[in-house]
Amino acid sequence: MNRLKFQPNEIARGLAKKRTRTIALIIPDIANPFFPELVVAIEKVAKSKGYTIVLLNTYEDDLKDHYFWSQIQNRYIDGIIVASFNLDIRSLKRIEELGIPFVRIDRAAAYNTENSIGVDNYKGAKIAVEHLFEVGCKKVAHISGPKSLPLSLERKRGYIETVAKMSKDNPPIVYEGDFTLTSGKQLTEKLLQEHPDVDGIFLANDLMAIGSLKALKSLNISTPEDIAIIGFDGIELTEMVEPEISTVEQPIYKIGAVATNRLIYNIEDAKTDFKEVDLEVKLIKRQSTLGYIPK
Amino acid sequence: MNRLKFQPNEIARGLAKKRTRTIALIIPDIANPFFPELVVAIEKVAKSKGYTIVLLNTYEDDLKDHYFWSQIQNRYIDGIIVASFNLDIRSLKRIEELGIPFVRIDRAAAYNTENSIGVDNYKGAKIAVEHLFEVGCKKVAHISGPKSLPLSLERKRGYIETVAKMSKDNPPIVYEGDFTLTSGKQLTEKLLQEHPDVDGIFLANDLMAIGSLKALKSLNISTPEDIAIIGFDGIELTEMVEPEISTVEQPIYKIGAVATNRLIYNIEDAKTDFKEVDLEVKLIKRQSTLGYIPK
Repeated sequence: MNRLKFQPNEIARGLAKKRTRTIALIIPDIANPFFPELVVAIEKVAKSKGYTIVLLNTYEDDLKDHYFWSQIQNRYIDGIIVASFNLDIRSLKRIEELGIPFVRIDRAAAYNTENSIGVDNYKGAKIAVEHLFEVGCKKVAHISGPKSLPLSLERKRGYIETVAKMSKDNPPIVYEGDFTLTSGKQLTEKLLQEHPDVDGIFLANDLMAIGSLKALKSLNISTPEDIAIIGFDGIELTEMVEPEISTVEQPIYKIGAVATNRLIYNIEDAKTDFKEVDLEVKLIKRQSTLGYIPK
Repeated sequence: MNRLKFQPNEIARGLAKKRTRTIALIIPDIANPFFPELVVAIEKVAKSKGYTIVLLNTYEDDLKDHYFWSQIQNRYIDGIIVASFNLDIRSLKRIEELGIPFVRIDRAAAYNTENSIGVDNYKGAKIAVEHLFEVGCKKVAHISGPKSLPLSLERKRGYIETVAKMSKDNPPIVYEGDFTLTSGKQLTEKLLQEHPDVDGIFLANDLMAIGSLKALKSLNISTPEDIAIIGFDGIELTEMVEPEISTVEQPIYKIGAVATNRLIYNIEDAKTDFKEVDLEVKLIKRQSTLGYIPK
């Protein structure tokens, strides 16, 4: 042992009982303010229970990489929170093989389990699109998230079914974005070039809605008078732009708290029954839709 | 060894040669978009050289905690980047004792070393305040960062000396903020209650400038016609609000790249001379100052 300069430290203890009171939080895009807001919530709860968060900002492809997970295993993380990734069956199996407790954030209808936490994305999309019709829009388009993510598909399904019900004459118009500001901006420009009569846009997240607003301004289209827009998430930024952007608010803090509590219960092997926590989405009506003038 | 279920994994190898190709990046406030922008730059460079970043979002007080650093030591991190913290002599000594290469971001005049990277904060403040006088402001106030940070003190000194030179009749007015949106908002309200004749505000960072803009709107003060504001950092958000906010842009990407390259050279013990990289600040004039109407 001396040869290795062995010290009875955290890692060495980890080798024996594998406990470091550390949680790895894996997020896809630190530049999207949704994730920093989520991180703050998770850190607060984790800290109150004596856990430290290490944050891994990761590309989707990394999660398919065997090396990525073996690195996590080798660091003796006590638990893992994976936010907003599409974990395919194989990746899920990889995580399960690690034998480390984990929870996922963003309820994915396709692979729902009790360790998957999030809101009803279908319902959120539905109330967003209904609201656009309520303020008088007639031709509503959708800029979706990446189709690899179940939550994008759920939001898109909410859009398509609501349009089919409320606007029989206009078929759905969907452009696939990637949840970044830039894609919201570029796809709005493309959308209006190809469909100049669109009068309402449902963006699959707030960051794309902010990009969309920038595009509309640069095209000299009056927002919200001529085009109403609505996002999804409820990040603070939607209140800072002009006009303020309507959105479907997720209870970001609660989601983070529920995920962290559930994970720590799993880590500590406490067989506590979970109180069901209300993670309802909520329509926030602001100027970007309320200011629309029906034609 | 068997008793410990010893496996020849990353950590075990770390016990011997202490190399994990991992860099710990310690930031003070993930909710301030400056840091996510910096993280993206650092990750890009680190990844291109085969390093992984683990992110620790940390309170200032944690860095004074012996346990915090021993945890880092125990995780066999190869190197550390510390951004925007006030490391006192004792904390610096703690890091040096770890024997792990580290660099600091945000040049701190007080403790300048070759491993401290950042811009000239004094000069940045000077050009911001000069610009406010150039557009016609007569009574310029400052909302500073926390006085515990050398970079705040440098920005404040730039403000005070420039006001003393350019506006002899008006003594400096300084309120101490904490770089958050909320403090920018609340201190702007307080400032205008106590000094209603202020016509220009230099905020020590962009996030506080965005908070200030919100406060001015809620007070029904026309911005920029009646009060001009300018921030510091150059985060993207300054272009999304209305009016767009003038700022002193730091080359965030370059700062991250320089810090990461320097750290990796230190880790790999490459005795390369560093090319001096231009980390100049740059005045970005936008509507929040250009739209001011001199009285």
